Amino acid sequence: MKPTVVTTDPHQLFDSRPTFSHAASSLGPSRMVMTAGQVGADEDGCVPADTTAQIELAFRNLRRCLEATGATVRDIIKLVYYIVDYDPNNRLHLAPLVRFLDGHRPATTLVPVPKLARPEFKFEVEAYVAIPQQPLREVDVVVVGAGLSGLKTAYDVQKAGYSCAVVEARDRVGGKTWSVDKDGGDKFVDRGAAWINDTNQSEVYKLALALGLRLVVQNTTGNVVQQDIDSRVSQFPYGSVPQGLASGGTQDLVAIRDKAESVCQTLDIYDPVRTGGHLDKITLEEWIKTEGGGETGLASAAIWTRAMLGLEPSEMSALFFLNYCKSGGGLLQMRSDRKDGGQYLRFARGTQSLSIGLAALLQPDSILFSSPVRSATQTERGVHVVSARGDFLCRRLVVSVPTPLYKEIRFEPPLPAAKGQLAAQNRLGYINKVILRYASPWWRQHGLCGMLQSFTGPVSVSRDSSVDEVGQYSLTCFLAGKTGREQSQLSQAERVRNVAEHIRQTLGQGISDVPEPIGFEEHEWSRDQWAQGCPCPTAPPGVMSQYEQALRAPHGRVHFVGTETAYEWKGYLEGAVRSGARGAQEVIQALGAAKL
Amino acid sequence: MKPTVVTTDPHQLFDSRPTFSHAASSLGPSRMVMTAGQVGADEDGCVPADTTAQIELAFRNLRRCLEATGATVRDIIKLVYYIVDYDPNNRLHLAPLVRFLDGHRPATTLVPVPKLARPEFKFEVEAYVAIPQQPLREVDVVVVGAGLSGLKTAYDVQKAGYSCAVVEARDRVGGKTWSVDKDGGDKFVDRGAAWINDTNQSEVYKLALALGLRLVVQNTTGNVVQQDIDSRVSQFPYGSVPQGLASGGTQDLVAIRDKAESVCQTLDIYDPVRTGGHLDKITLEEWIKTEGGGETGLASAAIWTRAMLGLEPSEMSALFFLNYCKSGGGLLQMRSDRKDGGQYLRFARGTQSLSIGLAALLQPDSILFSSPVRSATQTERGVHVVSARGDFLCRRLVVSVPTPLYKEIRFEPPLPAAKGQLAAQNRLGYINKVILRYASPWWRQHGLCGMLQSFTGPVSVSRDSSVDEVGQYSLTCFLAGKTGREQSQLSQAERVRNVAEHIRQTLGQGISDVPEPIGFEEHEWSRDQWAQGCPCPTAPPGVMSQYEQALRAPHGRVHFVGTETAYEWKGYLEGAVRSGARGAQEVIQALGAAKL
Repeated sequence: MKPTVVTTDPHQLFDSRPTFSHAASSLGPSRMVMTAGQVGADEDGCVPADTTAQIELAFRNLRRCLEATGATVRDIIKLVYYIVDYDPNNRLHLAPLVRFLDGHRPATTLVPVPKLARPEFKFEVEAYVAIPQQPLREVDVVVVGAGLSGLKTAYDVQKAGYSCAVVEARDRVGGKTWSVDKDGGDKFVDRGAAWINDTNQSEVYKLALALGLRLVVQNTTGNVVQQDIDSRVSQFPYGSVPQGLASGGTQDLVAIRDKAESVCQTLDIYDPVRTGGHLDKITLEEWIKTEGGGETGLASAAIWTRAMLGLEPSEMSALFFLNYCKSGGGLLQMRSDRKDGGQYLRFARGTQSLSIGLAALLQPDSILFSSPVRSATQTERGVHVVSARGDFLCRRLVVSVPTPLYKEIRFEPPLPAAKGQLAAQNRLGYINKVILRYASPWWRQHGLCGMLQSFTGPVSVSRDSSVDEVGQYSLTCFLAGKTGREQSQLSQAERVRNVAEHIRQTLGQGISDVPEPIGFEEHEWSRDQWAQGCPCPTAPPGVMSQYEQALRAPHGRVHFVGTETAYEWKGYLEGAVRSGARGAQEVIQALGAAKL
Repeated sequence: MKPTVVTTDPHQLFDSRPTFSHAASSLGPSRMVMTAGQVGADEDGCVPADTTAQIELAFRNLRRCLEATGATVRDIIKLVYYIVDYDPNNRLHLAPLVRFLDGHRPATTLVPVPKLARPEFKFEVEAYVAIPQQPLREVDVVVVGAGLSGLKTAYDVQKAGYSCAVVEARDRVGGKTWSVDKDGGDKFVDRGAAWINDTNQSEVYKLALALGLRLVVQNTTGNVVQQDIDSRVSQFPYGSVPQGLASGGTQDLVAIRDKAESVCQTLDIYDPVRTGGHLDKITLEEWIKTEGGGETGLASAAIWTRAMLGLEPSEMSALFFLNYCKSGGGLLQMRSDRKDGGQYLRFARGTQSLSIGLAALLQPDSILFSSPVRSATQTERGVHVVSARGDFLCRRLVVSVPTPLYKEIRFEPPLPAAKGQLAAQNRLGYINKVILRYASPWWRQHGLCGMLQSFTGPVSVSRDSSVDEVGQYSLTCFLAGKTGREQSQLSQAERVRNVAEHIRQTLGQGISDVPEPIGFEEHEWSRDQWAQGCPCPTAPPGVMSQYEQALRAPHGRVHFVGTETAYEWKGYLEGAVRSGARGAQEVIQALGAAKL
């Protein structure tokens, strides 16, 4: 990224390196961002007693302000620090500041003060930011979001001969696919979405083939480790059913699984409310109880909803869950890691390579990064789109962000009430994939496939996410739903320690030489400004019945895509590609009609 | 200059005159500049104990920040003061503030604080600045710098039919020519370069004639005053040699002068390294000692190097100095104040009138003032130039600033390593012309021409710089090199007092009624953001041998001019004009070739 702020060291002023410049200027026309003074208080207003912890938190909060406005640290032109009990011989803010700035040197002022707004605050920092503006651009179509669905729309639109710009809040493509190779060596792991298959996920598979991406078959050789409601650990071969669960649990589990499978098969994914409206009156938990499910049946359903949606059975409409299963061919198919299943194939270089590949096929400079869209105003001529780094005039707008993020954009005229309700009531779950990296796939030598299913947590489910050909060996451990949110309250070090310990006690049970992980990855999508959760907004009872018909409906010149709007493989990469293609079709048809 | 900030006095708010406005707005699209809080610390971090002195220094530092970013006081939109031990009944900052603002009234906030970043700081001021932006301009050629070389390039380029803009960091033309008439009455004196001749300085003389500028012959009637190494003062007729110097000094001086003259005549100014490479291995001081020069020979050489380059014989390559002399026809010719010499003619209205005259011949609005160039990015189409008050797209860029200032511009692709080394290693000297103004030329009545040559200092050399026809009578006293830098550590009042006293003790020796000066002028070029020294970057040993060939070499679409790049009369006005013409030729040829 080119520098956006010019820092100046005037002749004959004292050396201000490494933390500031005597003067800093914006580089041409820019949008100003100013933050409130950021203090060391968390989301709930809690303030750590330790001053250094407060300072770290204040800088983290400041970073959130930047991210939410489309600014980067390099866009900061000025910082002002207010410090209580300032001691020039013990400058506590210096180390966190140097880490925060990462080489950037804005102009700064340090103001020792007797106190701040609340007696417990010891440190406050405010930023003045200049985000450079590109000139107004006129295009046929603007797509909001460079995730897989948005990029697919843009690609199809450009292929049809229309001009199209993609405006992305993040500094990268891929949305909730994010593949990282932190230590180099081509050992990518997926912080987000990871799996596809090559049969009923035909669209994403075609794209993978077209882009020439290497695929890896998910390992399902060996036993699954099962942790029961009483924490007892047992094993069963992948593809069979856990045996000997407490209190007749096996039967309970099988019964509720079969019931869910058969009921979901009765639903019409093109009209779930007509075919299953009564199921939208209750939560999945209530439905399971109604169907006679016991403690194990409920625990088993919690495994499904946590790993699939990051929520509890009590937090979603039964209809929503069962229709979600049906969109992927049914509960069994969606949960399967084998041929035709939801988790059959992975990408050697991660799923983000789909988006990277698509982006490379767009015309140069099609994507504007770090530029969240702020407003979309429809006029007679088209849509005026305001984003952090520049404005657009377009004839059609395609919004590819999840419904709960619609609130970040000011639509004029406002979205219809039904769409607003979807945005307000659909809920994003908590899934954090803690990926433990190992020097070797030690679990395989002990007859394990790497899968854990735990009714107790903290890890709900784990899977082998290795790519053997490059020596990337890892277990992806799902912290999800209620038990995931509990872990989210801890520090990262504690959380990762808990995950490693849980794996040692379950997959490692009876194994004397379980090795230490050599590294880890995680990303808390629920804390991510531009995800706010994952993988797919989930409806509580009543929402589908009232508002489902509004999910895909265009709003004047504004169209809506995203995996949640797919009929098939909702919440999956396949759903993203299909919805993107659908959005492009809508737009191409509208533009074609306008020509006549 | 038009106002760039609009200040507002809202109805029914208390009267905020004279130091601030309740609100201030930028005038249209602007670049933001923010300064770090400026305190009363000098370049070395030293802080005066006196609070008022700190406040004065803080405002001086703030002014440096403005100047370095291309801002002026009138561009300030907001000031914030932080004051320790603030006493509302004794507002120490008020008088310095009023002087600093000079009638401008930005919005301001005053914040009393218990302390500042360091315990000794008592005052801090920060500025928020809005620099108005002109729209992007496309021209054939952009010239960086409106000194004499840059203006000559621009004039020739426009005459050849190409569009050309000049972008200047200062708020005036002329660079290191700066002629002032502080008290009116057309009594100009030159703070910078002052002399030309009408024979071997053919190009600048032609320009002076073309512009119809009145010239004045340098006064050399009468005796020179010589101050020997033992401080003894004697006289000798101008054009002869000082007699009776201590320890056989006269012979020493003549021998080393004649040796320097004969060796410099052996050099080829078009290839000095080939003809004198061995001289680039040692400093001028070492060379003088090798040639048998004694204390007086060395003191005499110091007079040359101080007055000519602002440095000591120990601070430059022997080759650099001797080639510099040769570029002006030799040591004797360059040092001469008579026909054919370097100091034969002055301008009745000062040398800046050359630049003012050239600028007036350019097309209207060719020059953008107060707009330092920040970056120059070469693309396939041309060069994108970013300057403080607007951006340019051009086909060719001509840089006319001295090599040590190249660091202020971010070149993309970066300058070749050799040019970077020239910029980093060539050194700008210290010359401060303290010009004492008198009611009459009292020295002439005592048989003196006004020239002093002092081996001891503080004044190294003085000259009569009067313009008799308008009654401007003055002695220009060179504070230069080591003895000059010592004076630079003093306050201006002390420094000027020392100069006047030195003149009284030397030129005034034995004269009972030496009058008091009626005024003075000076400019410390080494403290000037856009000069950083004068007159000409000087090479230490080794630099010419390695990097001389890079001095004039273009860098893609970027060309380099400036008096230091001239073959003839390097460091003089003549060199500036010749280099400017050379740059224009390069560019016109390149643009012509591009047309074919």
